[in-house]
Amino acid sequence: MRCEIVAVGTELLLGQIVDTNSTWLAERLATLGIDCYFQTKVGDNLARIEETLRLALSRADVVIVCGGLGPTQDDITRQAIANVMGVPLQRDPALLARIEAIFHQRGHSFADNNALQADVPVGARPMATIAGTAPGLICPVGEKRIYAMPGVPREMREMFDADLLPDLLRRRGDATTIVSHTLYCLGLGESVIAERLAPRLQALDTALGTTGNPTIAFLASDFSGVRVRLTAKAADAKEAQQILEKEAHEIRALLGDAVFSEGCNDNDPTHHLPEAVVLRLLAERGKTLAVAESLTGGGIGARLTSVAGSSHVFRGGIVAYASDVKFEMLSVPRGAVISEEAAAHMARNVRQRLCADVGLAATGVAGPDAQEDLPPGTVCVAVAWGDDITTRTLNLSGRPREQVRILTATWLFDMLRRKILGLSN
Amino acid sequence: MRCEIVAVGTELLLGQIVDTNSTWLAERLATLGIDCYFQTKVGDNLARIEETLRLALSRADVVIVCGGLGPTQDDITRQAIANVMGVPLQRDPALLARIEAIFHQRGHSFADNNALQADVPVGARPMATIAGTAPGLICPVGEKRIYAMPGVPREMREMFDADLLPDLLRRRGDATTIVSHTLYCLGLGESVIAERLAPRLQALDTALGTTGNPTIAFLASDFSGVRVRLTAKAADAKEAQQILEKEAHEIRALLGDAVFSEGCNDNDPTHHLPEAVVLRLLAERGKTLAVAESLTGGGIGARLTSVAGSSHVFRGGIVAYASDVKFEMLSVPRGAVISEEAAAHMARNVRQRLCADVGLAATGVAGPDAQEDLPPGTVCVAVAWGDDITTRTLNLSGRPREQVRILTATWLFDMLRRKILGLSN
Repeated sequence: MRCEIVAVGTELLLGQIVDTNSTWLAERLATLGIDCYFQTKVGDNLARIEETLRLALSRADVVIVCGGLGPTQDDITRQAIANVMGVPLQRDPALLARIEAIFHQRGHSFADNNALQADVPVGARPMATIAGTAPGLICPVGEKRIYAMPGVPREMREMFDADLLPDLLRRRGDATTIVSHTLYCLGLGESVIAERLAPRLQALDTALGTTGNPTIAFLASDFSGVRVRLTAKAADAKEAQQILEKEAHEIRALLGDAVFSEGCNDNDPTHHLPEAVVLRLLAERGKTLAVAESLTGGGIGARLTSVAGSSHVFRGGIVAYASDVKFEMLSVPRGAVISEEAAAHMARNVRQRLCADVGLAATGVAGPDAQEDLPPGTVCVAVAWGDDITTRTLNLSGRPREQVRILTATWLFDMLRRKILGLSN
Repeated sequence: MRCEIVAVGTELLLGQIVDTNSTWLAERLATLGIDCYFQTKVGDNLARIEETLRLALSRADVVIVCGGLGPTQDDITRQAIANVMGVPLQRDPALLARIEAIFHQRGHSFADNNALQADVPVGARPMATIAGTAPGLICPVGEKRIYAMPGVPREMREMFDADLLPDLLRRRGDATTIVSHTLYCLGLGESVIAERLAPRLQALDTALGTTGNPTIAFLASDFSGVRVRLTAKAADAKEAQQILEKEAHEIRALLGDAVFSEGCNDNDPTHHLPEAVVLRLLAERGKTLAVAESLTGGGIGARLTSVAGSSHVFRGGIVAYASDVKFEMLSVPRGAVISEEAAAHMARNVRQRLCADVGLAATGVAGPDAQEDLPPGTVCVAVAWGDDITTRTLNLSGRPREQVRILTATWLFDMLRRKILGLSN
């Protein structure tokens, strides 16, 4: 099956916003083994949207178009699709009632032009899910199909999962349910994970991320480590879950305690950020946390407090950027400040000064210049769990300043997780 | 003049990377009044790249293609262009020598396949600038032109400004030099700035950002405020500078002290971030800085220390997230902690504890829940300049948690700038 993606909106052509919808859709389609050879951006112009849709339909079985479904005069995707289908638009009274109900429910007044969103090309049908106020459309064109969704990313993603994808799979004569399960990993690089999972990729007879059931895809980020995403197709959700659970079991055995979180069909990956995970682990144990930071300058605390509700665990910290602030505020012995010993003092003393159960510390060379004869990327970290202190030296050399700072926080969170769970560090 | 943009790369179609090049190019073209009706992404497939280039050429005067110019077998943009031109590729000995020299200069060994990058369609010519190792190409096709540049954003941007743009403007029969000047503004919203500059937009007889000489464009960000970018066309750089200086003078008069930084043809806008500007202002005066943070959790310090060299000014800070950390570490009187009085105590005491000349403080409600009966977005900030303390309450209500935290830092940096320069706050 071939698919093309069309993004509609003059703001895209003017470079005012980046088209992330096409990227998100392309990644999902690739995981499903659906080819996507072209992606096009076009402005809010009826003739050009029509031209683009016709060309895409001539090359592909399925066209997904995002944007231009709102209630304003600029929103002409509905009309363009009707023209391509060779049919008029017709107001759908049931759909109109649904949209009015949404406005009513949110306490918004329903303006006349909102009724335009209930116009549907004859022969097309609205998607069951309305994530915002603009309905998505499923539009048959001969043996092919145009799917139209709003351009708001959150709405588009929800409607893709709930309506578009099941319809697409049914058309492919495929199992109708797709479920994904993600294993979030820290402490192993992407290449090591790929190596460890090679037997599973082989067993599933799968080129990475494109075929097999389940498929396996890797996504790496400095903030959240490596995500291993399993995607299963089955006749129903229960069967898909069984396939996923079986595979996840195999993968857990290969990756061991590198897996720090797992989730099913996640639309909120922030829930699985390392900082969110350690805050939950500490909250479950009724423990509080304090942080002493040097090279990160406050970034560790900033990440912890980006999680709503962190105030139950996080008490605060001391940012000791200048050496004498380390000596005076954290009782680090005068001398070299980039050492595991200095990190240990920082973690112990910030814990005590702020009356916390647990202390974290990081001191090191972010770069661009060397410091204390140590190259950029040399970082010493410590976790003080009560009086029990663990230290470690990270080698993050060869990376730019900001990446060193981000990875320091990510690795320190993993070190804390291992400490909490009694895993080796 | 009409232009189309084509991004080449299978990784784009698989959703592995987001195409920001097209967005950047589109924004630049819009500023120059060049229409861009279609943007297409296509994979590393010869027939499909050719098909895409032919279609684009049939609709536009100029096609800009990014990606596929490297030395590997996937890099087939050169061949696709040659096929569209109906000519063979021919190795350019002078270009080969330039590429070899680049490798030599960087101490890299020159592999055989790197020579492929010196292959040029007969009738095309390499751009003068080589930002990485892949040369850009200027390729005449009848009366039209294909410009090819590498997909690495930094390289692409440099070559666009240095070679593509001057050639494009000459073809348009236009002045051959384009220079831009940006005024970075804080303390006024985008709509207020638009209102104040309305007389200038009218005087230049310009629809915002598209016509006139100079053109005026606005770009807003929570991190850096509003940028007002003037772009002038002229026969040479000196004349363009004169046009810009005249207009910048008018605009400064309308925006007053909201303008906190200015720059010409900036390819490093981080230099103009508010945190970078205040660090420079403090360094010039030999002043040191300490920060007391609550709702930002370390984010103010993290932004300051993202600037290389911040250690000359920034000493560190106290993150007092829990109320009793404010009482004990910063001597805030027990009671309500979200008040200008509390912020004043925090700024004064962090300055003293860390032996800094200047203290900053922020305390407030990031959300999602209310605190001390105050709604999310209520933030109190303070600047202690020696013993002289200025406080202010920001109303950032209606914004999500993370935006409240970012704007708190941005506005506090502006408050400090005004204090340093003796401007009203």
